[in-house]
Amino acid sequence: MTRVRVAVDAMGGDRAPEEIVAGALAARSDTVEPVLFGRRELLEPIAEGLDIFHAPTVVGMHEKPADAAREKRDSSLFAACRAVGEGDADVVVSAGNTGALLAAGLLEIRRLPDVYRPALAVPIPAQRGPSVLIDAGANADARPEHLLQFGYMGSIFAEEILEIEEPEVKLLSIGEEPDKGNRLTREAHPLLVASGLRFAGNTESRDLLAGAADVVVCDGFTGNVVLKSLEGTIMTVLSALREEMLESRRGKVGGLLIRGAARGLKRRLDPDTYGGAYLLGLRGLLVKAHGNSSRAAIANAIALGARGVSGGVVARLAGRLGDHAGLRR
Amino acid sequence: MTRVRVAVDAMGGDRAPEEIVAGALAARSDTVEPVLFGRRELLEPIAEGLDIFHAPTVVGMHEKPADAAREKRDSSLFAACRAVGEGDADVVVSAGNTGALLAAGLLEIRRLPDVYRPALAVPIPAQRGPSVLIDAGANADARPEHLLQFGYMGSIFAEEILEIEEPEVKLLSIGEEPDKGNRLTREAHPLLVASGLRFAGNTESRDLLAGAADVVVCDGFTGNVVLKSLEGTIMTVLSALREEMLESRRGKVGGLLIRGAARGLKRRLDPDTYGGAYLLGLRGLLVKAHGNSSRAAIANAIALGARGVSGGVVARLAGRLGDHAGLRR
Repeated sequence: MTRVRVAVDAMGGDRAPEEIVAGALAARSDTVEPVLFGRRELLEPIAEGLDIFHAPTVVGMHEKPADAAREKRDSSLFAACRAVGEGDADVVVSAGNTGALLAAGLLEIRRLPDVYRPALAVPIPAQRGPSVLIDAGANADARPEHLLQFGYMGSIFAEEILEIEEPEVKLLSIGEEPDKGNRLTREAHPLLVASGLRFAGNTESRDLLAGAADVVVCDGFTGNVVLKSLEGTIMTVLSALREEMLESRRGKVGGLLIRGAARGLKRRLDPDTYGGAYLLGLRGLLVKAHGNSSRAAIANAIALGARGVSGGVVARLAGRLGDHAGLRR
Repeated sequence: MTRVRVAVDAMGGDRAPEEIVAGALAARSDTVEPVLFGRRELLEPIAEGLDIFHAPTVVGMHEKPADAAREKRDSSLFAACRAVGEGDADVVVSAGNTGALLAAGLLEIRRLPDVYRPALAVPIPAQRGPSVLIDAGANADARPEHLLQFGYMGSIFAEEILEIEEPEVKLLSIGEEPDKGNRLTREAHPLLVASGLRFAGNTESRDLLAGAADVVVCDGFTGNVVLKSLEGTIMTVLSALREEMLESRRGKVGGLLIRGAARGLKRRLDPDTYGGAYLLGLRGLLVKAHGNSSRAAIANAIALGARGVSGGVVARLAGRLGDHAGLRR
């Protein structure tokens, strides 16, 4: 059995390189071989035997993607993607600049032949189990046939990486009836009905955190809005509850007693459980970990990325989308 | 001083007519005169002297708006709106079918001359104070100039009904820079910059519940998705926390002690604090209360609707949008 080679952008993220390298070390196993991209002089002292590929520059977290693509092709972020594009690694993991990563994915790894648009798949830690939201932000404007492809991509992702059999797919809209929604969802609905996917109609954002479906399809603008709304609302509710509790002695004591439960909930809702966002539709896998990822988050991202490689996600995407290329308009 | 006449759809909502009538009675004052629309034989025994206008039919909560508009013009919902359209009342309050209400607003009250599209304004109980989300679902597809008008309408609403001076307006997008977003937000941004409003750029859904701005502008699809996401996430987080607490003895005791704090939080986040959603851009005011509104929620909706009338919201909208009618394309 060959080991899965994971190209790790060791310089990307708020806590790079220390936490990134520590995560790579934690993820190293008989089946997974992380390789580091970044400044050798910084990585060597902490790499503990991991392979290092020297990359002299670093893409800043707020640098414009177009600038990075023009001036920073020698950066850890672009070099790690290039390793996948050139077949030297199987999957890339980065906690760096999201826009630059999307650009690097397209430039260095390139789209699969039948893919209109790569999309970001994000596993949401819903109450009833993980749910894949796709697209979570790669395509702010999308067409109905893009949403159909997101449905295929999300399904394969759910099967191979989240190990959900025959995933149920729903379309995110503003009403459960097929004719409820905007022009995009109304036009995408019949395409999904005819797709051969286990499509179960529309869902509403109200049910997302409880568990609306295994795969929830939407355009990247809506997906990004809803994802950030989930994150922000969870944080605000928990901090507001803390404030309310601190206002009375009774509440303070109660707060101490429920600390374990609150931590359990936070852990359950922690997006890092699933390693981050996955850019699907390229000739290789790309995992975008949270900017402030801890070593545990990076280790998860690497493990799940490797699972995607073992499951043949890219080959399955290529096959499935190729079968339906006739739908292209 | 004349009393504000509020047309109340006494048959609309899950708890009609009892809770609706009780709310109307609670809201009756020297300045506010609720009048009831619905089946006289049901209302008379509980109306305690409120005026009753007999309406023989009722629009069901799940009836199709187009069907209701064709067959139920004699319903309490349409008759209450017609009273405003014909000048017999100043504002209508209904907890009934949202789609039917939008239709009844357009048919019976009609648009203001310079309004492209009426929009739903919903006050969000954000941590730092109320925030108006507009459009929360009336227009699933919108154009940039519609968003500009939503900005004007939301501002006047914030001033007159929420009593916020010089409200700050932001555009809901997926990044704070002007060029982040979809085609719609990128094109609406410069219109808002040139609007004369106190426009402060883009905001993200992450900040909505904490308090992003006094007025948050978006298309009705995005607004509805984000509103339902807020509601669903708050509910799911609180119920998940309860479940976590019930898993240990310690947590159970803590749960009892924080019950007051949790109730305080729920009350603070309760959308009924602000009476519901306001359809703006018609020749009269229309307040849509939650379907399962209690008497307190209905009383709030009536009081806030009356405040909108006293503040001259409709006349101010007409004036403000008339000033900018040159923007119409």
